[in-house]
Amino acid sequence: MAEIRRIGILTSGGDCAGLNAVIRAAAFRAIEGYGWEAIGIRQGTHGLLARPVEAEALDLAMFSGTLMRTGGTILGTTNKGDPFDYPLSDGSRADRSEEVIEGYRLLGLDALIGIGGDGSLAILRRLAQQGGLNLVGIPKTIDNDLAFTEVSIGYASAVEVATDALDHLQPTAASHSRVMVLEVMGRDAGHIALDAGIAGGADVILVPEIPYRIEAVAAKIEALKAQGRNFALVVVAEAVRTESGEPVTRRQGGGTVTYGGIGDYIASRIAEATGAETRITVLGHLQRGGMPSARDRLMASIFGVHAVDLIARGAFDRMVAWSDRRAIDVPLAEAVATSHRIDPQGPLAHTARGLGICLGEA
Amino acid sequence: MAEIRRIGILTSGGDCAGLNAVIRAAAFRAIEGYGWEAIGIRQGTHGLLARPVEAEALDLAMFSGTLMRTGGTILGTTNKGDPFDYPLSDGSRADRSEEVIEGYRLLGLDALIGIGGDGSLAILRRLAQQGGLNLVGIPKTIDNDLAFTEVSIGYASAVEVATDALDHLQPTAASHSRVMVLEVMGRDAGHIALDAGIAGGADVILVPEIPYRIEAVAAKIEALKAQGRNFALVVVAEAVRTESGEPVTRRQGGGTVTYGGIGDYIASRIAEATGAETRITVLGHLQRGGMPSARDRLMASIFGVHAVDLIARGAFDRMVAWSDRRAIDVPLAEAVATSHRIDPQGPLAHTARGLGICLGEA
Amino acid sequence: MAEIRRIGILTSGGDCAGLNAVIRAAAFRAIEGYGWEAIGIRQGTHGLLARPVEAEALDLAMFSGTLMRTGGTILGTTNKGDPFDYPLSDGSRADRSEEVIEGYRLLGLDALIGIGGDGSLAILRRLAQQGGLNLVGIPKTIDNDLAFTEVSIGYASAVEVATDALDHLQPTAASHSRVMVLEVMGRDAGHIALDAGIAGGADVILVPEIPYRIEAVAAKIEALKAQGRNFALVVVAEAVRTESGEPVTRRQGGGTVTYGGIGDYIASRIAEATGAETRITVLGHLQRGGMPSARDRLMASIFGVHAVDLIARGAFDRMVAWSDRRAIDVPLAEAVATSHRIDPQGPLAHTARGLGICLGEA
Amino acid sequence: MAEIRRIGILTSGGDCAGLNAVIRAAAFRAIEGYGWEAIGIRQGTHGLLARPVEAEALDLAMFSGTLMRTGGTILGTTNKGDPFDYPLSDGSRADRSEEVIEGYRLLGLDALIGIGGDGSLAILRRLAQQGGLNLVGIPKTIDNDLAFTEVSIGYASAVEVATDALDHLQPTAASHSRVMVLEVMGRDAGHIALDAGIAGGADVILVPEIPYRIEAVAAKIEALKAQGRNFALVVVAEAVRTESGEPVTRRQGGGTVTYGGIGDYIASRIAEATGAETRITVLGHLQRGGMPSARDRLMASIFGVHAVDLIARGAFDRMVAWSDRRAIDVPLAEAVATSHRIDPQGPLAHTARGLGICLGEA
Repeated sequence: MAEIRRIGILTSGGDCAGLNAVIRAAAFRAIEGYGWEAIGIRQGTHGLLARPVEAEALDLAMFSGTLMRTGGTILGTTNKGDPFDYPLSDGSRADRSEEVIEGYRLLGLDALIGIGGDGSLAILRRLAQQGGLNLVGIPKTIDNDLAFTEVSIGYASAVEVATDALDHLQPTAASHSRVMVLEVMGRDAGHIALDAGIAGGADVILVPEIPYRIEAVAAKIEALKAQGRNFALVVVAEAVRTESGEPVTRRQGGGTVTYGGIGDYIASRIAEATGAETRITVLGHLQRGGMPSARDRLMASIFGVHAVDLIARGAFDRMVAWSDRRAIDVPLAEAVATSHRIDPQGPLAHTARGLGICLGEA
Repeated sequence: MAEIRRIGILTSGGDCAGLNAVIRAAAFRAIEGYGWEAIGIRQGTHGLLARPVEAEALDLAMFSGTLMRTGGTILGTTNKGDPFDYPLSDGSRADRSEEVIEGYRLLGLDALIGIGGDGSLAILRRLAQQGGLNLVGIPKTIDNDLAFTEVSIGYASAVEVATDALDHLQPTAASHSRVMVLEVMGRDAGHIALDAGIAGGADVILVPEIPYRIEAVAAKIEALKAQGRNFALVVVAEAVRTESGEPVTRRQGGGTVTYGGIGDYIASRIAEATGAETRITVLGHLQRGGMPSARDRLMASIFGVHAVDLIARGAFDRMVAWSDRRAIDVPLAEAVATSHRIDPQGPLAHTARGLGICLGEA
Repeated sequence: MAEIRRIGILTSGGDCAGLNAVIRAAAFRAIEGYGWEAIGIRQGTHGLLARPVEAEALDLAMFSGTLMRTGGTILGTTNKGDPFDYPLSDGSRADRSEEVIEGYRLLGLDALIGIGGDGSLAILRRLAQQGGLNLVGIPKTIDNDLAFTEVSIGYASAVEVATDALDHLQPTAASHSRVMVLEVMGRDAGHIALDAGIAGGADVILVPEIPYRIEAVAAKIEALKAQGRNFALVVVAEAVRTESGEPVTRRQGGGTVTYGGIGDYIASRIAEATGAETRITVLGHLQRGGMPSARDRLMASIFGVHAVDLIARGAFDRMVAWSDRRAIDVPLAEAVATSHRIDPQGPLAHTARGLGICLGEA
Repeated sequence: MAEIRRIGILTSGGDCAGLNAVIRAAAFRAIEGYGWEAIGIRQGTHGLLARPVEAEALDLAMFSGTLMRTGGTILGTTNKGDPFDYPLSDGSRADRSEEVIEGYRLLGLDALIGIGGDGSLAILRRLAQQGGLNLVGIPKTIDNDLAFTEVSIGYASAVEVATDALDHLQPTAASHSRVMVLEVMGRDAGHIALDAGIAGGADVILVPEIPYRIEAVAAKIEALKAQGRNFALVVVAEAVRTESGEPVTRRQGGGTVTYGGIGDYIASRIAEATGAETRITVLGHLQRGGMPSARDRLMASIFGVHAVDLIARGAFDRMVAWSDRRAIDVPLAEAVATSHRIDPQGPLAHTARGLGICLGEA
């Protein structure tokens, strides 16, 4: 087993709450626990692509009392620029993977901790396989779509933010007799929508895993009205499509469009079908950058320490995970090959139905 | 001075945090302090228009430990339907003011506490003048555009929510090297934008009271970049118009539009001018319904008690207010005739400039 | 299998955040899902002891938009008065278990949902065995000392509150160069102290499961000082004893004592050993009553629905639980016979040590 | 008027939320607005006493996105060691004021911004008078006991924290049928207790400005019970004394005492008089170090900019203040000579009585 003297740490993909707590834990464990150097790589794999390489030695003095309490990542991140299919300035694309691998060599790294979601970890693993990098992955994703771990960093905080948004919307919905539609993140999976919807007392929750009919949604809202309720809360995951299954083009930076997003589409359809006064809120980036919840900070600490321990043991090509109150680790190949989606017959969907929440089902 | 035995309380206009604390304080003071009945009128003046009148006696048991901590208004409210120009189902409009006044008589009210902003209080005053109603007003508006009072209910909480949103956006902006644009409420005045922008560390704040040039905004963002800053926070009040002074049509419920709102417009223009990656967040109704801040609950309590005291003294046609650490009251006619806008040379704008914040000025 | 028509719900033991969300979910599921009556029993088993029995039919209208967001329990609770050893007014004790069982009969209950910690659930189970009550248990405890379930209601919120307290104490500790000692709840187990201590960046965490030496604590604080750190954060679980293993008598309601509690004792010993300026904060009841976190509300909803489903299936004498992302259920007898304590070699203690946190070990 | 090239900034007295936002605003205005150097002095006047002087040039890079959001003071502070009566290591005291003045000269300062409460500002003014220092004061105190300014930094955040504590205690009080006593800060004035007590729905508020009788408190609690209320919330300012007017010795670091503090005393007396189950919470340092509220950050920004503007105008020996929505300034001599106490007949006490809150009056 090769001796470890210097490891790199990078964050990749969309940012979320808890990343700084992961970086702090991993750097502390590496420096104080094993006497290694810890190098922070800037902007995910971009830092390894840049020449000179963009990276700096992590110093424990950076981790003052407040950094672990702060959202985002001090290393920066990016969710653009797969090095195997890298966008060039002339509009074409190129495979720049060897440059990234070279960056790892230039930094003299003996191992790399990659903090990312399934997409980022898959790319990092491909780089590691190709270049012989000693990689350990730490799962982070507000979408919670990673299998083999009960916890991914960032998800708990995102659910708290989305639930808090429902806590804000409920009184104003009731005061004005409105249907409030909240659009939350979730590119492929509807976990934020389902968990926050249950926790925040939603009446309707639409997720990409469960097909919906607007008639069913409208019927629920009419039924609430018949029971004397003057308002309703509707949560929609951004990955939900139109009733016919087509995506609603999201507006980014203007341009002529039909709907402002799936939340807008659903609100419009509800208004047409029920005559109710509807309002839309798109929670967007508020879900990413807030102060991490205690739970995210705790799990970040566990994962950061465990990932460094794996490196010390030479256990590469693995992802740290949490299962049954224990820190475990699983093969990265398996972790990125399987995704965790809402089971339409699973415990969360069952709970929602049991509370009378409409999941849009016919 | 006519004896008081029964008073009505209504909330009118957009809801905000702190209304329940006002209702609680006024009802308690009336019932326990003076032995009167307190009648809660539903949905603002709509409750007085309906037949039978929609209202119910307020019972102190309703005001359990948590109601004052809850956003919104248990009485309901509306910001549609000026009784002097009431929209009928056939699309025409009618003066239904006499019906509202009759509603007051049908309830046997001796006085009325109206909780509203400048628009609502102006309508209530007109009704009071026409019908001889004994009216006392309590100022509430998240826009903070009322003169003669240093405090209106709802504003403090809205500023906390908007500042908290900037606290959430800053880390994600820094992590992704983005320009984050936050659109906040403020129909005529930019107070939320200016106060939250300063408190939340914004780099650019655009308000309707100060004309802006996109070139100035872009220059600020370029200057930050030149200093090594990789992100920027921009706050825009919803009342800001396009550079040429025209309103951006807000999308409500779909339909073909050019921009999703002023925030979208500003973000698009910044992206064009600087090439920066921009993202938009429209805070919307999250600003209204949250748990009221301690300050809003305190002021709500002061105003509720003082309004009832005014009724007991026969001091009608007045609005309670706060000035120099004292509860005062001012003529309603004056209160609704003057509005509080941002003074481009005032202390807040001066503070913003002193902190290097760009107000969009050429 | 006997037909179910009416079930009772009670909360027992110390209150915590999330109980109302459990009650709401169980009542909704019973009433709307199965068409049963749901009876809320007041003050735990006291409501069944009282004559007339203190209980009331739960009405879904009680569960307005805000109740599930509210801490505490609308049913009331108590952690005094084991019916098998009930304190009488003359100071003696009596077995009043038959009266409780009779109360169940008087209410015409077909089953009972008991929401409690290990002590309460053990008593309820003994009553059920003796009287043939159809009991299902739901785990709640801020101490997190129940085995067989990864989640007990109230714990997640308590950890968030304790972590938030550390977030408040860190800046003032650093500003004044102080050692801040935070005493948190945990009668037998130190989970809150350990989890919040890690999440909140504590330097020292003392828990009852791991013996400590003041010399080790003092050495850690001296080491921090030598590294240039001017402050330290110390978390102590209330169940920790003096170094010699004796309990520190807690003051309740005055009286001559030596120390105000274990936090006071530890702070005094640190001050003696290091000369550092120390301050104590006893978090106390602030850990119980706050707004439940999204996670507690979500788990409360899952448990409430699942408990009612168990009753419908005739699966009595069981406790609902959460394991590996699934709602399961386990025999009550086992659940109350085993307790979940901190494993001194487990993942949390390992993480703490890996982050340089002193656990007081010699 | 002497040219300004270098100013010092120090924080003195107990820390509070918002100090970093003041330092940031003042440093930015000095450096960017006027091109001066800004020197941060460590630990209040201690930094000027130390040799070498403990101070460092403030660099705008220190004021990243998160510093203004963070409680405490990066400069450190102290509330011990009046330089006119300085405690020496042999237990005697000495006048070391000339050394402090010399420290100002050694740093080459042209002016000094002192951020403090009435005690600190009085000492700083005496130093300024003696040594010819160009002093401008900025008011900060969680006690809110400064006259001539409607706002002092730190107070708004402290009231939010204390109100939040009542929000946490109310549900647990109601769940367990308890009287909860909350002891809040306030060395001479009871403003936190009174404002937070009103905002948080307290039933009894005891402040040092209004003499109390335990009989009156007990009668209030009995009256609530008679009305069917099973709990009560009591807020006590730490400056309140025993009924006979003597101070309750606060325990700091152990030692034999009779009561743990005034909260403990009041809780014990209530328990004796009413038989109610009482619990005490001492909020303590949690009130100082939290994230500053938007309001505190806004006012901090205004005060920091205005203080530097005063220096630029040569307007020394003055304190910045806030009055009627404007930033003003007042003579320091007057500011420190007058204190703002609760007026027993003023608007807040009147509001409290109007809401049925017992102020302990016979």
